[in-house]
This record gives sequence, structure tokens and C-alpha cells, in this order.
Amino acid sequence: MIEHIDSEMRRRTISGVVGYGETTLADPDLTYVIGGTLPRGGVYLKRAGRAPLLIVSNLDYGTAKKLGRVERVETYSRWGYERLVKQYAGRSRAFPRLIELILRSEGVHGKVTLFGRNDLSAGIDLAAALRKLGVKVVGQRSPTILEVAREQKDDNELDEIRSVGKRTAEVVKQTLELLRNAPSKRGQLTIGRRPATIGLVKRVISSKLAERGLIAPEGTIFAIGPAGADPHNFGDPNQKIRKGRLIVFDIFPQAESGYWFDLTRSFVIGRAPAKAKKLFSAVQAAHDACMDLLRAGVSCEAVMNAACDVIELAGYPTLREMYKHGAKNVSSGFTHSLGHGVGLTIGERPNLSLMNTKPVKENSVVTVEPGVYFPGYGGVRVEDTVRVASKGIENLAHIDSELELS
Amino acid sequence: MIEHIDSEMRRRTISGVVGYGETTLADPDLTYVIGGTLPRGGVYLKRAGRAPLLIVSNLDYGTAKKLGRVERVETYSRWGYERLVKQYAGRSRAFPRLIELILRSEGVHGKVTLFGRNDLSAGIDLAAALRKLGVKVVGQRSPTILEVAREQKDDNELDEIRSVGKRTAEVVKQTLELLRNAPSKRGQLTIGRRPATIGLVKRVISSKLAERGLIAPEGTIFAIGPAGADPHNFGDPNQKIRKGRLIVFDIFPQAESGYWFDLTRSFVIGRAPAKAKKLFSAVQAAHDACMDLLRAGVSCEAVMNAACDVIELAGYPTLREMYKHGAKNVSSGFTHSLGHGVGLTIGERPNLSLMNTKPVKENSVVTVEPGVYFPGYGGVRVEDTVRVASKGIENLAHIDSELELS
Repeated sequence: MIEHIDSEMRRRTISGVVGYGETTLADPDLTYVIGGTLPRGGVYLKRAGRAPLLIVSNLDYGTAKKLGRVERVETYSRWGYERLVKQYAGRSRAFPRLIELILRSEGVHGKVTLFGRNDLSAGIDLAAALRKLGVKVVGQRSPTILEVAREQKDDNELDEIRSVGKRTAEVVKQTLELLRNAPSKRGQLTIGRRPATIGLVKRVISSKLAERGLIAPEGTIFAIGPAGADPHNFGDPNQKIRKGRLIVFDIFPQAESGYWFDLTRSFVIGRAPAKAKKLFSAVQAAHDACMDLLRAGVSCEAVMNAACDVIELAGYPTLREMYKHGAKNVSSGFTHSLGHGVGLTIGERPNLSLMNTKPVKENSVVTVEPGVYFPGYGGVRVEDTVRVASKGIENLAHIDSELELS
Repeated sequence: MIEHIDSEMRRRTISGVVGYGETTLADPDLTYVIGGTLPRGGVYLKRAGRAPLLIVSNLDYGTAKKLGRVERVETYSRWGYERLVKQYAGRSRAFPRLIELILRSEGVHGKVTLFGRNDLSAGIDLAAALRKLGVKVVGQRSPTILEVAREQKDDNELDEIRSVGKRTAEVVKQTLELLRNAPSKRGQLTIGRRPATIGLVKRVISSKLAERGLIAPEGTIFAIGPAGADPHNFGDPNQKIRKGRLIVFDIFPQAESGYWFDLTRSFVIGRAPAKAKKLFSAVQAAHDACMDLLRAGVSCEAVMNAACDVIELAGYPTLREMYKHGAKNVSSGFTHSLGHGVGLTIGERPNLSLMNTKPVKENSVVTVEPGVYFPGYGGVRVEDTVRVASKGIENLAHIDSELELS
């Protein structure tokens, strides 16, 4: 929550937090403090205990005011930036002067931390220039102030994520229906009389996302058989889709608002072999056990332990066992963490991993995604994205999980 | 060109250039040195005069080798990173140790610069930690080493951009045909029997992009009438599309490879009013004059001056006149720069502006986009993306520019 910026500043004795960027695109922290996207970004200043200030271009002033998260919006012109650019012969020399001017005018004399996803070579140069001008620039080891603030979502954020979830679920449902109803010839699926390849299905998925204002900047996983055993194999576009094979379909789209969603279903088109059935029911049971256990206050590792319990009981190896026995290579079984936070990024706090002993916080949004993989054969992963509430969870996209599409 | 990293390192007396990121997504510099996208990013080290080293996760090793830009690919495990994470209780403390270990082992003792689009608060903390370990970290004022390297494109990059251009042109052509052939009722266009709104047309455009493996992470401009007078108004999705009104359609999609394209057409559906015709022919003539003049070695400002010459002669104000007369507010006429570089970002070097006296370099890829705007009325912008060659230009997407779609 945005209020946590202040509490974290106090805790870390920081007087000023300055964020900047030439765009909010792919800059979750800047998008967060501004409360939305601004094509030309801006400079954000938060003083401890005071309302923030946002400085934007003349062209973005109206948009920034409308976003409403920052009440005090001003323009670069109001701060004489054009004059500074002239005086110091270019933006890269003038920018540190502008920041120093803002900090001085606003009475920030203590430690200052910079944020924003910017190129580091220029960012480190900026820090050096500011220090020369007397600004006490300090870094923040991860988790940064903004990472902590973004962990618990506010009502507007939750509404945004719910909306992305609803649209994602529609795309997944329609895709599964398409596959379920696709005619087949000797086991080979066809779509619109053409052989159904992974590439063709992905183009259909992309169009369905696009119609709903979603994009998939990191792609979509549609992995068949052995490819599904590598949790990050995206699937060969030329591979043809056949009945009777395990498929892992993992979709992680982003909306214009910047918010993401994450959802995985694993299935077989037609009848599933017994081995796939056993695998699926273990993973589904692990998933359900975690969904039952998860609520605010439960430790992150406890939720992952619940998944390991079920999966080990079913006779499959897990990361937990491998840690215990000091094994180095983890290639089969439940080989990854249970889940991660979702918001303005597709991987943020909290991590539902065995190393994280901290409690899950109310209104954090996390994936629950146990998976079991066998190299050379395939894998099953079942993933939902949920809001953590005080007494349980809110599943942010209702969609059946069933092994056989038939 | 990648070779320029070495020449820039020599010029700036830098011994080591280190790039890193947890993903290559939205990180043009890291994507560039790796030669493609890697889901989990990596650490890149370039020593002056030596071949680079790339360190990636076990899962990305095969992909990184296949990309082929860096021959020497190694894994985090090979460098004992997991051990360091354990020893220093977490990644954020272990990461500076890893970087220091790599630099020491590879014999880099002089100045080191860091790059990669990373959060600055954590990046400045990393720089401080490295300095404590004896690494001489320095920043780079823009243009950074990587910005300079990326200015001139190599053959692979040009092929990528040509491919994005070809697909973009297809989408634009189909969209224009759709609008040209759409039935209308009392001037109001319909598509599939529904009233054609900007939102509907944009969904069609998004689907057409998606079918071709393109996304538009920054949106698409489709601005009608007065909205077209603000070069960055994206258009109100609920606005209905009518015949006889000036429309600015500016599309800037990105391919999976990370490369962008930029193309604008301005038009009227049906018959255009005389004022629009005059505006269009001035802008088109300015555009054509720039295309004729542009070649390697011509100064950036000279190309923009050519556009100003034509536009002023037609009787419209330009930025150049306003600079001359010291005017502050630039709201009508040709109010922006002529163009900018395009590659792994949608705005990079070189800038075709009045302030840039440097020559345009061979195999840079730039937009040529003069525009004239009248607040309250509308605007016309005509934009192509071209490769700069020694004797002229290569237009990277052939598509007619005509005012009247009828």
C-alpha cells in the first residue's frame, strides 16, 4: 500500500524518495506511485510524512491530474527545466541540477534514495553528480521501499487485477473449448481445416487477448509432452497438436493498466493415459491443499510445505526432499517454488518458497502453482492467482481444472 | 554495432563493462549484447579488447548458446552462485560478491561500468557494495557506451526491423482498406453492423498485430479531428468514426525479437475539406524533401531544416521560427522534431532535431515524421521508418500515403 512508503522511509531514516523515468512503460515502481501510465514519465518526490510531488511534461499534465494518485502535479516548465537544459548544455547535465533544485526547494536535507527502472550506467552517473551537489544519495538493498509498498494491494489495484483475471479466464475457456471441439484426423487436431500447430493456437490466443485489451509481452507457454517437463519451455510453434498427450498451457497477460495475471492449466485432448492421470491428481490435490491453507498470517514456507506433503505422499520427489539430502541437481518432481506475487510485475513479493519464513500479508496477490515434471515424458502444473484475505483466499479467475478435454 | 563497445571503452578508458538483469524484457541494452531475449536474463562481462562472457541460469544455457552473439556462455552454478547465496544469506548480499569474483577472476582491475535497465535504488546499493569490495565503479553520462553501439544497426538487426516493418505495413494496409470499404449511415461508419468507434478499430488493429506476432505495448494513436492536433493524444475509444474528418493513425508495434517499428498515416475517409488538403500537401512535401535529402553524412539538423523550409514556405509556423523568435509556447504548426532512431527501443539515437549538428550515420534506422497541427482543428503527420545508406535511404515499409480514402 502507498502508505507503506512513509513507514518504510521512517524505518530506514530516509528523508526523500525520488523516482524518475522517461516513460512509465515497464517501470512498475514509477507506474505505482503515479497511479497509472504516463507516456513521458516524470519525476516523483516523496518527503517523509508529507504528500508527494509529481513533475511531468506539459503534455502529460492533464492525464497526471486525472490519475489522481498524486494531488500536487507540476510541470518541468514550472521548475525552469528548459532553462537548465540551455544553461548546462543538454539534458544529461541539467537533470541532476533539476533534482537538486527540487530537493533544496522542498527542504529535503537528509538521506535521499532514487528509484525507477533506468539504465544503471546513466543512473550511477546521476547519483555521482547529485553527491557532488551535496545530495546524500543512498541505495536500498532489495526489498526496496517500493517493493515493500507494492506487496499489499489496495482496492483499486485489486479491481484492476480482478479485471485482468476475468479477461484471462475468458481467453483460457475459449481456447480450451476450441481444442475440445477441434476435429481430428488420426489423432492430429485441425483448426479451420488447417493442422493445429502450437504456433496457430498461440496466434488464436494472442488475438483473443488483443480483443480484450491484453498483451502477453513475455509470450505464452503451450508445451506438449516432454517439452512440458521444462517449466519454461514455451513450445515449438511448428509442433502439431495431437490427442492423448499432456499439455501445459501457462498464460501471463498484462493489461494497459500495467497489471498482470498468471494462470496455468494442464490437460490432455481426448483420453489421458494412466500415468498422466496419477500425475494430475497429485498436483491437483497439492494445489487444493494450498488453496485451503492459504490466508493472511500463514508463513510462506508453510504453504509450500503443504504442497510438498501431498506430492511426496503420492510418491513424487520434491525440492524439499532434495534440499534435505543436499542434492544439487533438481530435474524431476516438484522442482520449483509454489508461487510468487503478481501485480505490476509478473514476479514480485511475496515468494511462496521454502526459504521464506515470513507470513503472507493480507491483500497480497499470489500464484499457487504446484507442478510435477518428468524429463522425457512431460509435466503437470495447475496455477491460479488469488488474493490473500484474513480468513482464506479469493480466487481471481474461476475456471475448471480438468485433465481430459473430451 | 557491437564492435563499438570496444572502441567506446578505449575512448573512455573503461576496463570492464558489466550488464545484468533478471530478464531481458524491456531491457534493450541487455537484449542487444546477448543477441536476443532470455527469460531469466543474465550477467554479461566485456573486457576491453577481449571476447565477452555471458553467465546465465542452467535453464537458459541452451538458448543463450543458440543465440550465438556471445560465444563464451557459462552458468551461475559454474561460478558457485548458489554457494554464495547460502554463504551471504540471500541474493541481494551475494550478487555483489559474484560480480566481484567474476571481475577478479577475469583480471579486470581498472574502471568498471554497470549497465542494464534495473531499479536504481537496488542498483546504487550494488554500486556501493562493489566499491566496498574494491571495484572502481563509474557511471556513464548519456550517450552511454551501449547507446552509441546501438546507433548503427548490423545486418541481423536490419533484417529484424525489415520484418517488423513488413508486418506493420500489412496491418496498416488492411486497416485502411477496412475503413475505406466500411459502409456508412449519415456519415457514421459501421464495421460488422456495429457503429465504428476508435475502440473497435483499435481492437481490430491489435488482433491483426497479434496474428503477426506483434504487440503494441505503448498503444496505438488513432486520433480524430481536434484530438489529432495533440501529437500524443491516443484517441477516445468511445468516439465514433465519421467520414470527412482528419484522422492521424500512428502505429508503433514491437516484435518478439524486441525490435520496434513506427509508421503514421493521416487521412480522411471520403472527401477531404480544402483546409485538410492544403495541410496534407505541405506535410507530404516536407516528408518527401527529407526522404530525398537523407543519407549517411548529412547533419541531423539539416534534414529537419529541409522540412521546416517546405512547411514555412507553405505558410505554417515551425519550431525553427519559434526558436529564432524566442517564443516559449509552441502549440501550432510543426511543433516537434523530425524524427528519432528506432531499434530495440522506439526512441533512441540519432535525434533528427535542430539541436543535433552531428551527421546521420550509415545503417542507423530513423523515422521521418514531419507534422503540422492546429489546436481545435486537427493535424497531419506522415511518418516512415527508413535505413540510412551511403547514397540515400531504404524505406523499410512501402505503403501509399494518400489523404482521401474513397
